[in-house]
Amino acid sequence: MKTILILGGGKSSTVLIEHLANYSAAEGYTITVGDAEPDAVRAKVGKLQNVAVVEFTLDDTLKLENLVRNADIVVSMLPAFLHLPVAQECLKQRRHLVTASYVSPEMEQLHQAAEERGLLFLNEMGVDPGIDHMSAMRVIDRIKAEGGKMTGFESFTGGLVAPDSEHDNPWRYKFTWNPRNVVLAGQGTAKFVQMGKYKYIPYHRLFRRTEIINIPGWGIFEGYGNRDSLKYREHYGLEDIPTMFRGTLRRPGFCRSWDQFITLGATDDSFIMQGSENMTKREFTNSFLSYDLVNTVELKLAHYLNLDLASEEMYKLKWLGMFDDVPVGLNKPSTPAQMLQKILEDRWTLKPEDKDMLVMWHRFNYEQNGKQHEVHASMVSIGGDHIHTAMAKTVGLPVAIAVRKMLKGEIALTGVRIPTLPEVYNPVLDELEAEGIVFEEREVDPTFY
Amino acid sequence: MKTILILGGGKSSTVLIEHLANYSAAEGYTITVGDAEPDAVRAKVGKLQNVAVVEFTLDDTLKLENLVRNADIVVSMLPAFLHLPVAQECLKQRRHLVTASYVSPEMEQLHQAAEERGLLFLNEMGVDPGIDHMSAMRVIDRIKAEGGKMTGFESFTGGLVAPDSEHDNPWRYKFTWNPRNVVLAGQGTAKFVQMGKYKYIPYHRLFRRTEIINIPGWGIFEGYGNRDSLKYREHYGLEDIPTMFRGTLRRPGFCRSWDQFITLGATDDSFIMQGSENMTKREFTNSFLSYDLVNTVELKLAHYLNLDLASEEMYKLKWLGMFDDVPVGLNKPSTPAQMLQKILEDRWTLKPEDKDMLVMWHRFNYEQNGKQHEVHASMVSIGGDHIHTAMAKTVGLPVAIAVRKMLKGEIALTGVRIPTLPEVYNPVLDELEAEGIVFEEREVDPTFY
Repeated sequence: MKTILILGGGKSSTVLIEHLANYSAAEGYTITVGDAEPDAVRAKVGKLQNVAVVEFTLDDTLKLENLVRNADIVVSMLPAFLHLPVAQECLKQRRHLVTASYVSPEMEQLHQAAEERGLLFLNEMGVDPGIDHMSAMRVIDRIKAEGGKMTGFESFTGGLVAPDSEHDNPWRYKFTWNPRNVVLAGQGTAKFVQMGKYKYIPYHRLFRRTEIINIPGWGIFEGYGNRDSLKYREHYGLEDIPTMFRGTLRRPGFCRSWDQFITLGATDDSFIMQGSENMTKREFTNSFLSYDLVNTVELKLAHYLNLDLASEEMYKLKWLGMFDDVPVGLNKPSTPAQMLQKILEDRWTLKPEDKDMLVMWHRFNYEQNGKQHEVHASMVSIGGDHIHTAMAKTVGLPVAIAVRKMLKGEIALTGVRIPTLPEVYNPVLDELEAEGIVFEEREVDPTFY
Repeated sequence: MKTILILGGGKSSTVLIEHLANYSAAEGYTITVGDAEPDAVRAKVGKLQNVAVVEFTLDDTLKLENLVRNADIVVSMLPAFLHLPVAQECLKQRRHLVTASYVSPEMEQLHQAAEERGLLFLNEMGVDPGIDHMSAMRVIDRIKAEGGKMTGFESFTGGLVAPDSEHDNPWRYKFTWNPRNVVLAGQGTAKFVQMGKYKYIPYHRLFRRTEIINIPGWGIFEGYGNRDSLKYREHYGLEDIPTMFRGTLRRPGFCRSWDQFITLGATDDSFIMQGSENMTKREFTNSFLSYDLVNTVELKLAHYLNLDLASEEMYKLKWLGMFDDVPVGLNKPSTPAQMLQKILEDRWTLKPEDKDMLVMWHRFNYEQNGKQHEVHASMVSIGGDHIHTAMAKTVGLPVAIAVRKMLKGEIALTGVRIPTLPEVYNPVLDELEAEGIVFEEREVDPTFY
């Protein structure tokens, strides 16, 4: 019997553990889950076949050493900044490693050492990063193999709510993942390349320069740019591609309304607000508007942001309670971003019956035999219950599948890797399809800018 | 004979050295100037009475020790981040110190040690900070002494060009001080308090929330907020004041046009632009606009920024050359802010015959015997030749005057200080008046918000 060690048994690990447990008897392995709160994890997965849960915190280096020694492969589902000590222990004891996180510069530096020891440290194996790499590279490699030359690549992913769960919410959005990341999304400068020209969008304009995307059967979405689209050219072997743009999907109208928060300064995470402990939502909004003895916060805001009083944006802000004279309820000194997050959590939380939705969309432009082509590929995954969310499935399943393939020796790679190579993406995407995570492709009339 | 040591003989030290030299014979002291380029300094001040110039760099600790030992008082005109080793040497050898820079936290920590040794480390003795503190505190202390209660304080300073030097420039602005600081001005979040309400303005709105200020005889100005107006409440003994706002003055229309650069992202100093080495001014502008096969950069920009083609803002951008297909001319990888600075330097540089202008304006609101009062105080200083600029005079003269008073033992203070106490501001302001740096006060009908 082989052993899979999973460090971190939180929300994003449940689907992963269940999938691995399902195949454990047939494929001959057991699963050990290490977590700081083993009882909570046991309550979720303790009854699954071949799953043991043990207490583990990263400061217990002896425990880490023992757990890694007794494992054949290690999965770190810990927060990304905690992967390094795990990776170093894997190097020392010659164990493979899988994570769903971006490769940090420190992780990257272990490449040669891992290669020399015949180890595979496979990172970015979740959904974004993860499924985005795999689904894009399968198409890009096919286009190249058929003699096509890539001229443009765009890719958008969004963690949203399923159509049935949108109707009670004018934003058509609820938190399905880390709320703090949603509030801070886009800070910095978005960098991309379009028709060979480098383009830059500052944060305070990012949510106004969106792209409209239609996914047949699922309706219209809008996408805003991610921070750095440029580095993916190298990852994808598209160094000379004239157009490269990556972004995040929302339902139409979301971005224009979100932009009002940015314009106000309400997403600022750089300072503590005076009196934030006892501040009401109305006072929070008013702190970004000029002082006025007479006029209402509503009119001051509408005037400042150049909104009609009856506009969709004003309605969405009212619906969130931005003008309500009730306490925000964060009883500690907080930044504007923390205050806004709390206000949003009061309204954007999934109800027990709600389902989430993960949407991914790629646009491939290429030239073949002197002719321009454009292919769209899209994947939509709808969540099951509150544990088997689309987010948990699309993060957990590719990790689980990769672990099983590696354990069987079916992925013949070494070094620090991301899943851009056919050795990884072919077997994993094939099995994801069997799990219902399917990309649909359409050739369309090429778009010109 | 006593000795005054001045470290740093650059542009901002010349007026200071000249003033001290003028009084050296009558008051019985000599002046030693230490600078990394002694020949250049000698060319400017070498013929002045009682002035010696020596080579000095801060890494020569033995030289620092010797120079401080042979001095009775030390003036550091080095960049602010270099004051600390000088201050430590002054502590060790028991010498007074004067700077024109903000008190750093490290400098602040020397307060008790300086007090115990009977030393005065007098900082913020230039114009802003410096004359602003002194001129404000003289009025505030008088209002309090007469039984008034301060209800509001606003203060604005601007380094501008004299009216006669404005006409060839639609921005009515040229660089009279560090251009980089002008390009980066306002980044962060402006914080202030108005009628007891804390208010926050994010950078991308700062230059649209200006205040109009009329200085009789000098015309209309506009002011935008400085980053932190709040900390001055403590410095000025105004802890409970309901309104406190500090800012920077420009001529009307400047801020609205400058805001276009911020909206574009052209003041961003956080990343290197691809291809900046060979970029033209037109390409620089275009890099912040979306790709378009047909439309001009002019129309794209006007549409993006919602400007009329014939607007003042468009004219000012054209006048700066933002649409000219000529190289920016920075032949190294550069940030947007560095590129913009170069473009501005091509147009905003003072001509030999130009004169600069330093403008300071305070608003004091107070209640006395149940009645509301408002007093405005303003000071305008016009530069002489290109050495005796208004900026050099208003920075150098208060430092020089304070040094002379300290040498004569007329300022009976110890510790790390800024000039908010009457022991400093009374003698210095009186002598500044004799030098033509005069505040005019007017009582006006009180403003209500």
